[in-house]
Amino acid sequence: MKKASFRKRMQKLREKIDTGPLDTLWIVQPENRRYLSGFKAEDGQLTESSGSLLVTKTASVIVTDSRYTTEAKNEAVDFEVVTLKKGFASGLPEILARLGTRKLGFEENHVTWGLHQELAKKLRRMTPPVRLFPQKGLVEELRQVKDDDEIRAMQASSDLMSEILVEVFEKLRPGLTEKELAWRIEGLAREGGADGLAFPSIVASGPNSALPHAVPTDRKIRIREPVTFDVGVRVEGYRCDMTRTIFIEGPTPRFRKIYKTVREAQLAALKEIRTGVKTTLPDSTARQIIRDAGFGDYFGHSLGHGVGLATHEAPRLGPENPVDLKKGMVVTVEPGIYIPRLGGVRLEQMVVVEEDGARILTRDDHFYEF
Amino acid sequence: MKKASFRKRMQKLREKIDTGPLDTLWIVQPENRRYLSGFKAEDGQLTESSGSLLVTKTASVIVTDSRYTTEAKNEAVDFEVVTLKKGFASGLPEILARLGTRKLGFEENHVTWGLHQELAKKLRRMTPPVRLFPQKGLVEELRQVKDDDEIRAMQASSDLMSEILVEVFEKLRPGLTEKELAWRIEGLAREGGADGLAFPSIVASGPNSALPHAVPTDRKIRIREPVTFDVGVRVEGYRCDMTRTIFIEGPTPRFRKIYKTVREAQLAALKEIRTGVKTTLPDSTARQIIRDAGFGDYFGHSLGHGVGLATHEAPRLGPENPVDLKKGMVVTVEPGIYIPRLGGVRLEQMVVVEEDGARILTRDDHFYEF
Repeated sequence: MKKASFRKRMQKLREKIDTGPLDTLWIVQPENRRYLSGFKAEDGQLTESSGSLLVTKTASVIVTDSRYTTEAKNEAVDFEVVTLKKGFASGLPEILARLGTRKLGFEENHVTWGLHQELAKKLRRMTPPVRLFPQKGLVEELRQVKDDDEIRAMQASSDLMSEILVEVFEKLRPGLTEKELAWRIEGLAREGGADGLAFPSIVASGPNSALPHAVPTDRKIRIREPVTFDVGVRVEGYRCDMTRTIFIEGPTPRFRKIYKTVREAQLAALKEIRTGVKTTLPDSTARQIIRDAGFGDYFGHSLGHGVGLATHEAPRLGPENPVDLKKGMVVTVEPGIYIPRLGGVRLEQMVVVEEDGARILTRDDHFYEF
Repeated sequence: MKKASFRKRMQKLREKIDTGPLDTLWIVQPENRRYLSGFKAEDGQLTESSGSLLVTKTASVIVTDSRYTTEAKNEAVDFEVVTLKKGFASGLPEILARLGTRKLGFEENHVTWGLHQELAKKLRRMTPPVRLFPQKGLVEELRQVKDDDEIRAMQASSDLMSEILVEVFEKLRPGLTEKELAWRIEGLAREGGADGLAFPSIVASGPNSALPHAVPTDRKIRIREPVTFDVGVRVEGYRCDMTRTIFIEGPTPRFRKIYKTVREAQLAALKEIRTGVKTTLPDSTARQIIRDAGFGDYFGHSLGHGVGLATHEAPRLGPENPVDLKKGMVVTVEPGIYIPRLGGVRLEQMVVVEEDGARILTRDDHFYEF
């Protein structure tokens, strides 16, 4: 990532500070932290933060502990690094006093009730006191529209993931287990230079493919049954998310119809995607096709979701909460039909929203044409 | 895990309800959820819960969404499974009304400020209203003392991890990169039947070994320099955590002295561990030995921590917050000396506290005797 990219992001955040009621923002959410600063560390456990950002109109401070001081100094672009000896709650007051903070915005969906309570008590006692204000989606909103640097990284993760699937599908044969296939994908991801997987791979065969979130088992895959691969890798922190359903020696007539319906729904939804269209439109288009084919009860989830530093981020492509698609958003289009105990089909492409259409990042390989 | 183990855990939790002021506990923390119910799902992202528990004196309810209904029914022992269509905040009131809840305890370090706010608003409007009460460490306290089922699983993860290191160290040679070694460990973990790694492996060579939380790089390992492996696997959800520092062709005189000091500190600390001893005692014993050898400034972290379903859990073996060690606690003993830019040595064993001493779970292999 170029330093200029981070500077532009911070500039956009500061425009929000300039026009809003708060003088300081406290960023604890790991992907938001990385997006603004370039600091790559992840949080090992929910209760173990590896750092947070304090941003005012003029100051950029990254607050961490001794485990991460070196990384923060090397990675965070234009941030002053402050190493705390104890937790946030004990260390923040001193830094906030120096920054002249009076109104501190915090991420209400990432700060726990307990930490807020502990901190609020300390901040009230300061002279002058610092007040805490809940904020929602401030950085997440910026993250929705990807810059060139981010799209380049997402193209790289999509290319790698697409190549891995080509290799895995070439050697697909009955008798391999779901776990073996998942493991093979992970190996190829490492060899291909990925940071790691974007999420634990789903490899679900036969009846297991009826579970949208199946965990790979020791089940051996068989001919003519659906085998769904929902997989992704991370490159420079940016994720790819793609799904294919494959049938060794082709599907049975029933699954042929299901597959055809899902693919038609996907292609129709992809055609709807462009700048200015509501997020609900591609979802309703796909859903209508699935309903018309008689499978309306078997498509329970939303059509898609934003992808970036997180696997699931805004915007959601679903039946509710319409927002306008913007140029540079990256979303998945993943209709599915799941027949309990029998099996399912899901097909997922990841695309960039452009002015006049959807540009597909994941490769157009491995789709059947019936 | 035996069903009886889960029943015993729930019984202990209910003893707390019986003697406390609350009628219902809401458990959202993933390891707490698994500990009490057996429901194995993990939470993909901080904001994406795969379910939570509601426990009253007589009722055990697991609340999840359609992605996890099947797993919850198969895995959760004695729990009624309720599938919500929308989020917690919209679905909980109805269930709480049915349970007769008036005073609901929530985990203050796992529920976000925003979710608490949203839920509190809904619960206030109920007739009769339900009030929320912050709780801290209620289940975590139970989890500190492991039952036989848990110790068996932790022995299994320790055995597997120990065997993997034997295999990796046999083939250790200069020129291998840190990343290649980390990847080899992960492969052996999968082949050995682990659920996965307990945490991303640390393989840190030469100057990198001076960073306690180093991330594996493309650096090639060399003779006579420290190479630190801090690694762990999960078996049945239970984690192993172990660290060895290895020198191909042995250490330089300087690192020989450092190593000898760390090992002496470890052995002395291990001797202190038994039922009834304060958690601060082994830490101060190890710290004193390191200080006496002139390395006091280079051991920044605590001596150890509890391990179980989480890699880091209570109790902490550090210089502060003394609590009594209890029979059945599983803790690490991991002193280290880190010389900036030069390198470091850390040696970590995982032990069960017994009445008259520490029983080592990780194998006593790969320690140098100088």
